[in-house]
Formats: sequence, structure tokens, C-alpha cells
Amino acid sequence: MLTENVAVHWHGIRQYGTPWHDGTDGVTQCAIMPGETLDYKFVVDRAGTYLYHAHYGMQISAGLYGFIIVKLPDGVSEPFAYDHDHTILLKDWYHGSTYEEAVGLSSIPFKWVGEPQSLLINGRGRFNCSAADTASGVCNATNSDCSPYSLTVVPGKTYRLRIASLTSLSALSFEIEGHNMTVVEADGSFVEPFVTKNLYINSGETYSVIVKADQDTKRNYWITTNVVGRKPSTPTGLGIFNYYPNYHYKYPTTVPTTGPFWNDTASKLAQSRAIKAHHDYVTAPPPTSDRVIVLLNTQNLVNGIYRWSLNNISLSLPLTPFLVSLKHNFTDTFDQNPPPDTYDVENYDIYSVAENKNAASSNPIYRIDFNTTVDIILQNANTMTNATSETHPWHLHGHDFWILGYGDGKFNITKDPKSYNLANPILRNTVPLYPYGWTALRFRADNPGVWLFHCHIESHFYMGMGVVFEAGIDKVGTLPKSIMGCGKTKHMINS
Amino acid sequence: MLTENVAVHWHGIRQYGTPWHDGTDGVTQCAIMPGETLDYKFVVDRAGTYLYHAHYGMQISAGLYGFIIVKLPDGVSEPFAYDHDHTILLKDWYHGSTYEEAVGLSSIPFKWVGEPQSLLINGRGRFNCSAADTASGVCNATNSDCSPYSLTVVPGKTYRLRIASLTSLSALSFEIEGHNMTVVEADGSFVEPFVTKNLYINSGETYSVIVKADQDTKRNYWITTNVVGRKPSTPTGLGIFNYYPNYHYKYPTTVPTTGPFWNDTASKLAQSRAIKAHHDYVTAPPPTSDRVIVLLNTQNLVNGIYRWSLNNISLSLPLTPFLVSLKHNFTDTFDQNPPPDTYDVENYDIYSVAENKNAASSNPIYRIDFNTTVDIILQNANTMTNATSETHPWHLHGHDFWILGYGDGKFNITKDPKSYNLANPILRNTVPLYPYGWTALRFRADNPGVWLFHCHIESHFYMGMGVVFEAGIDKVGTLPKSIMGCGKTKHMINS
Repeated sequence: MLTENVAVHWHGIRQYGTPWHDGTDGVTQCAIMPGETLDYKFVVDRAGTYLYHAHYGMQISAGLYGFIIVKLPDGVSEPFAYDHDHTILLKDWYHGSTYEEAVGLSSIPFKWVGEPQSLLINGRGRFNCSAADTASGVCNATNSDCSPYSLTVVPGKTYRLRIASLTSLSALSFEIEGHNMTVVEADGSFVEPFVTKNLYINSGETYSVIVKADQDTKRNYWITTNVVGRKPSTPTGLGIFNYYPNYHYKYPTTVPTTGPFWNDTASKLAQSRAIKAHHDYVTAPPPTSDRVIVLLNTQNLVNGIYRWSLNNISLSLPLTPFLVSLKHNFTDTFDQNPPPDTYDVENYDIYSVAENKNAASSNPIYRIDFNTTVDIILQNANTMTNATSETHPWHLHGHDFWILGYGDGKFNITKDPKSYNLANPILRNTVPLYPYGWTALRFRADNPGVWLFHCHIESHFYMGMGVVFEAGIDKVGTLPKSIMGCGKTKHMINS
Repeated sequence: MLTENVAVHWHGIRQYGTPWHDGTDGVTQCAIMPGETLDYKFVVDRAGTYLYHAHYGMQISAGLYGFIIVKLPDGVSEPFAYDHDHTILLKDWYHGSTYEEAVGLSSIPFKWVGEPQSLLINGRGRFNCSAADTASGVCNATNSDCSPYSLTVVPGKTYRLRIASLTSLSALSFEIEGHNMTVVEADGSFVEPFVTKNLYINSGETYSVIVKADQDTKRNYWITTNVVGRKPSTPTGLGIFNYYPNYHYKYPTTVPTTGPFWNDTASKLAQSRAIKAHHDYVTAPPPTSDRVIVLLNTQNLVNGIYRWSLNNISLSLPLTPFLVSLKHNFTDTFDQNPPPDTYDVENYDIYSVAENKNAASSNPIYRIDFNTTVDIILQNANTMTNATSETHPWHLHGHDFWILGYGDGKFNITKDPKSYNLANPILRNTVPLYPYGWTALRFRADNPGVWLFHCHIESHFYMGMGVVFEAGIDKVGTLPKSIMGCGKTKHMINS
């Protein structure tokens, strides 16, 4: 890329000992300029299904993303069996320039990115497909806008499908017509298996599901993905579940599913709650936490621009990466006032249109005592639109967290912790916050560094929906020069 | 710009004592990253008509450009009189993304930018204008795609029009229907006045012309600009020369001129030759030069990509700006082999399709002894297309040069210097090289620093059409840290 900067995040890799290679522009590094080289080096310390993607501007939308599959050591096996292993990466696709999207999100008048034009399965989807493209019942592979992904399966075999979403906006439902899926892995952790017809999946999440090719081998089946969580205006994403030896581009004659009702939050919540640690692989969380941080998620107007805020603070990334500032004791490069650990719980009405006239763009950080246990309560609320609350997939860098519980309405710090699942909570790096609800999670601040925690919807993060945690900065080694070059690091130049 | 780097060049400002603020990415500075600040500080030491524009990627095409008008000191006046002073900036406009253009120019298969979709006069032009937009004879100002620039003049008054071109590709002809223009200034130097019906103008050139509002005051006249030098496929750029008090958006009923024949090189050459220093403002060039550098302009395939080369070297900007490398004695940041001062004059056929299989992308520099006089002979040749040679406007940073002469065919170093105009050559910063011809210029290397000399067609420069001169680097003061941050300057970080 001769004129574009970049930074690449290794999503789900915890970067123990290498916090400078987490790949987050403004947090752990300066962006890599055109022609420059940055060698990311890190340890992959456990098997699982992870991702990589750009962490600069809107470059996920622009297409910089993929899977990282970390294999099990020889002689070790998963608690499930399969014959073949395939990856399926889901994406929403905007046909416009991500540069224009970014400009719109930071302009007055504000210009929202809107709903995506297509849904992609492994990079393939459909757009402006004419009747001629489908009338024959065979995909017109000569029109690349209308040629779907086709997964060929052998009758009777069992498939592990690693399914991930890196959508820029859309929450999705994924299904394979006529086939149930058994969920067995989430974000690298083994899941107590459960069967589902459709998998709800948010941006930043990975799953493994087991699917058996045990249906009518004379035909193909639809693979479909649909927008949920927002009122959809994007056509169903289509793929073909192809039974060998049928022609792999032969369309099923059935009608592709349009998925569950987009606003069926109860169904999504039920699936989220069903995701628990596999009984042979439970890692129990610490029974109590040392600190509770409640983050109220609101949408606000800040200086005339729509922004997302946490406890009235909308994150604006500093010019000097936090990691560099903290390691070098710069105090003039970011907001030194600690951000609030909670909001006005008693008086805030989460069902009213957000006003929060005190919301401001800034960049303070939560400084966490090293090796302590922290609970995060994500509290959802109404946006600036009447009767609207959105779904936000929150992703934590550098750590997994235990998901202790989900609830409707306002979190009650006296009562709700009593319902926490401390027995077999799943350890993940991404978790949804549902409309008007709360999500509680716990993590151990055992990874020295500076770590972003943010909504994985790219435009929401661009609009400030994130916070930053620091722990054990004194234990971080010498930073590589390759992450520098911007902001106050220029003061460190020996001229 | 939240995700775009930038550098801004002050075109025509010589930057005596501030070579680090010439604004050329890769030559005098690292690009300015989003959110960063670089305060350009420089002395404007003489009056005249200059420009500013981006000098990064394809950002002129993206629209970052404008005039710099340096006024005369009080009590000093030009050798011409006028009542009013107006600026007219000409531009070719591509409707696509400049990011996509840049990708196309560096891809295999190579994708040329093609001809522009519109010509703009002071940012206004026309595109997809329907009959309804013009049928009434009045500009439909509600359609911003079809509302031209209108210059209102008062009958009987005299106008100085400062006309500049910052086209990305097109050489232009400019005229005002029914009005002659007297050319009086070029690139900040006073011109011995001459009258013309049309002004040929290349990217990077500025002119002042005097126009008298002495025609039929009952009507408006067309201002037109047309592509010359390449076979045009772009509609005539239209503006209105509006006689007050006629309605300023009333179209003339005459047919706008389509300009001179696009390939009438003789006419363009004649006008170039007519541009001489004003008799009261002649600065004589040194009578001889200390060094002659002959630069053969060829188009070549380098590693499968179309590039432009000078003496078989296609400029690829280094990651570390030349100025920083030279000041800090870095020898591993650019090609240390001096580039050739000439080509194989005897055997090279400038009328054959360029092959030059030895052409390579690289970044050597011409090191010039300080305060010596250098002659540059720009030698044109055939491109990689049969019977094709293009026009290239060459622009020198940090200096003006005397234009000693133009010629057809291959420059003859024995005979041709005898025809040099040493009596009253114009001092300029930009000069055209015509198809199959040569252009000779002379400059004094009296400005300590590192200076780019390049074709001002943005895509040609992007494709390597430039060389770099160094002189007096030992006289350059301490470089500001604000120009650093990229390439090997990271090694200078004190971590």
C-alpha cells in the first residue's frame, strides 16, 4: 500500500511478554507508514481459532482480515471428533470507499455508513444479480458478483467448521439448511456441546461447530447468513453446502432462509447463555473481584458529531501510543484524569433517549493493579433515537475474560451478582451486550501492558466506543523502535 | 484527514535557509501522519504568483492545492497597469478515487489513469449536464455539476488574471472568447509583454495576463479551456466572462471554442519561445556552465510495471528522506552510485519505441558542487507506444532556472548551445519538454539542500519521472524533528 498506513491486530493472541506487538494503532504502536516494515513477533501459547485484522481507520471494512488457526500439539486432541476441518469467514461488504465512510463519520453533518450492500461468505457474495444469473438453477460463475462460496462435503463424513465474523456493522445469524450444528469451541475455548439450527455470531467472535453430512445426498443445500440485531436491508448472504458428487455450483431449488426475526433478542440471549465451558476444561474464575467497573454505553453528540461514550467519555486515540507514553512517563500526551468506574446508576434512565450533555471526547485510561481481578459490567441504554438500543460485541485485547452473566434492564449491583455463573463460565475475548441489557465479565489483570477494550463494530469504535486498561507497565521491557515514529516519540529523536 | 498522510509543497518558494520545509515527501521530510502537526516556516523573498499543493501520493488529484500570491512591497509596482486582480486555477478532474488510481499505477496488470472526466476552472466544471441544464441559455445553478465559474468584469476596466494549472495530466489551452491576452508574468518573473489569443499552460506553470473588458458589453463571453498535447476526450472546460450588469449565469449564445489542434506542437513551441524576460528585469545567466547533465526521458517496463526513467533510472522515493540521510551521513538508505550525466547519445534512436531493458527503479542523487552552474538538457524520445512522444512539464524545487532554448529532435551538444538565448532568457521554475524535442535550462546551485526536479504530471512523477539534486548539504542547519519519524530516523530514537 503505497499511500496507506496500517497496523495489524492478532485477535485472540494474548501477547504475553510482547504487548508492543498487539497491533493497535494509538494504543500499542504508531501506524506503519507506506514502505516501512514492522515484524510482529509473538508467542501463540494455546490452540484455537483466532483472527487477524487491520486496527487502523476503517481497514477491516477495506478487507484486511483473515483467520489464525493455532493447532494442538501432536498427541493432544479436542473433546470432539471430525473428519475434515474448514474455515468460514463472514463479512458485511460496503461497496463505497472506506475513506469516504471515515470522512462521513467525522464530519458535520454526520454521515452514517448505513447498512452494508452485501453479506460475504469467505469473500464471496452477490450484488445486482440478474434473473439470468440464477434462472438456470446454476450459479453463473462468469459473473463474479454472483458466484457464491461452495463447500463440498462427502456424504457420511463429519465436518468441523471454524466460523468467524469480522463484520463492520452487522450481527449475523448463520445456518446450513437442513443440518444442525453442534457448537464446540468459542474464541479458542472448548464449549460444552449444544445443538442449534442457527448460530448467532457477532463481529470479533469465532466458533467451531460440528456438522454431519447426513442429509439427502442427491441435492445441495443452502448456506445462509442474515443480518440480525438491526432492521435488515441487506440481502441474505448465500453459499452452497454441496454434497459430492453433485455439481458444486448447482443451486438448491429450495428457498434460502431469511433467518430468525432480526429483533428476537430473547433467542440470541438464550444462545449466549448456552455457551459454557466444556465440563472437562473448566477454568474456574476467582470467586471475587478486587474492583468493579460499570460502563454505561451511550450515544452522544460531542461537538456536533455523533459519538459513542462510556460513562460520558468517548475515546479519541492519542497521537502518541499509550504504551509508549506510559513506559516513558509522558504525562502531556493523554488525559491524566482517571475515567469514572461507574455512572449515575440511581438517576440514569436507560430507556430514555441519551442526552449526556457532559459527554466529551478524551483519552484517559483505567489503571489496574497488576494481578488483581476486575469485573466489568457493560450496561446498555437507549441511543439518541427513540426506543432504540443496539447490540455491541465487546472485545478485550491481551486477555480472555469469564462471562459471568447477562441480564435485562439496569444491572443491580446488590442482586445481580448472585446470579453469576461461577461454576463453568466460558473464557472468551468477545462478548455481546444486548439492547437494554447488561453483560458481566471478569478478568485477571495478569498481562503487563496497555490493552484496548472496545466495541468490535468498526464504525462504533471509530466513533469512540472503547476504553483502555493498563496493568503492570513497570514489568514491560524495552519497547522496540519499530513501533515508534509518531507523536511525542519524535522528541526522542537524537538530532 | 483522520487516516491520510500528507506533505505540502510551496511551489515557487525557494526555501533559502529552510530546505526542510520544501514539503516533498521522501526528499525533504517524512509524511505528516493523521493528527500530527508540522509548522511550515519559510521566507517569501520576492513578489509573484506561486502555488501550494500536496506532494504525497496522488493528493493533488484529490484536490489539495491553491494559489500563493506574494505582494510587491509598498511603493513598488509592476511594469504593467490594471484595475483589478483575479486568480484562475485550472484543473483536470477524475471522478474516481485517487487511491484506486495509485493502486492501478503500481499494479500488474498496470492500470493507467486515463483521460480526466472534466476540466475545472476555479473548481467548477461540468459533468453529465443534460439538455435541460443548458437549453434555457442560463446556467442551471441548482445542478452543481453544471454551474460554471463566472468572472464579472466592468466595461472598460483592465484585468490582471493570474492563471495557473495544477492538472494531474492534461496540458491545456486557455482562452477568453473575443479577447486577446497580454502575457506579463510567468512563475513570478516579469515577461516581455506579448499578445496571444490563447494561452498554453502546463501543470505547475503560473502566468499573469492582462485583459481589457473592451468588447460588446451587451453580452457575456465564454471562458474555455481545452486539452492539448494528448488526444482529448474531455469536454471543454467552460466559464463565463460576464460583462456587468448582464446576468452572471447567462450563457453566451456562441459556440464555445474547442481550442487549437491538440497536436499542434509548433504553435506551443512558438509561444514558449516568445516567453522572455521583461527588458527592464533581465537577470543574465552565467555565460557558461560548470556541468552539463543530459536527461533522456523514456517510458519503460520495470519489473512488469510501466515507469518513466531518466537515463534508465526511474525514481523510487526512499523511506528515509534524502535530506535526513545526507545530513546524517546515512549511506544505506538510498542508492550511493551516482546517476549518469548523460545517455548513449550516439546510438540511441529517440524515434523508436523505448525498450531500455536496463531501466531500473532506484534512488541515486546528483551531487552538485555548491555555487556552481549546471545546465540540464531534457531530451524527449518515443514512449513504449509506436509514434508517440508526450509533453512533460518539468519543475525544479528550490531554484528558478533560465530557459536557454528549445529544439526539435536530438540535442547536439556541439551545435545547439550556440543557439542558446543568453541575452534575456526567462527565469522560471517549470518548463515544458515537447514531443521528440529538447529543452535546455541553466541554474545556479546556490541553495543548500536537497531538491527534487520532476515532471509535474502527478501520475508521471508517481511512475518515477524525477531526479534529485544535492548541493551544499554541509551548509544546512540542524533539521527539525518535525520532519522525521519514518525510515531510518527511527534509529535516532533514544529508547
